[in-house]
Amino acid sequence: MVQIASGSNLVTLINVFTVLPENQQKLVDMLVEATEKTMSQIPGFVSASIHKSADGTRVVNYAQWRRAEDFAAMLRNPKAGEHMKPILQIATNEAHLYEVVESFSVG
Amino acid sequence: MVQIASGSNLVTLINVFTVLPENQQKLVDMLVEATEKTMSQIPGFVSASIHKSADGTRVVNYAQWRRAEDFAAMLRNPKAGEHMKPILQIATNEAHLYEVVESFSVG
Repeated sequence: MVQIASGSNLVTLINVFTVLPENQQKLVDMLVEATEKTMSQIPGFVSASIHKSADGTRVVNYAQWRRAEDFAAMLRNPKAGEHMKPILQIATNEAHLYEVVESFSVG
Repeated sequence: MVQIASGSNLVTLINVFTVLPENQQKLVDMLVEATEKTMSQIPGFVSASIHKSADGTRVVNYAQWRRAEDFAAMLRNPKAGEHMKPILQIATNEAHLYEVVESFSVG
């Protein structure tokens, strides 16, 4: 179960991919495979949640890492790079690291 | 507690704001106030989590609504509009509605 909470000490990666609607499902499949086979095995990985936009033009990976250093090490991992190469042939992306400031929920 | 899960029937709004670093905290404060005073009172609101990027240039609202219709009704709500007007004087934004396709976590 993935939880969002402020004050958790995790770092959050929000990676927004822009894609043609006809390639959206293919991109989702590639990100799911990359997460299952590689990302989830890397030290410091906490979670990844793959989202597809209703308008077909975006895919978002909302991922949690233990520390910013773990995320940085993943970026230098050749296996992770192998997954990203074909992904960036069908999509552009914009990734930033975030801290959860506040979280509100009903009930 | 905010949870991310596939198959939940919720709709997810990911609203990415681009802002000057000197205005990032002000934008966070405005979004927190809008959520506390107005958004969280609107029927269909489930959760909102405000994130700030480490590089200072982004703020993301990751929000969950019961149904897309509830989110659409919020957009027509004059009180919600009143909050958004000053926010859009210091930031640009790009909002899309999403479905969670898959979610992975350790442990």
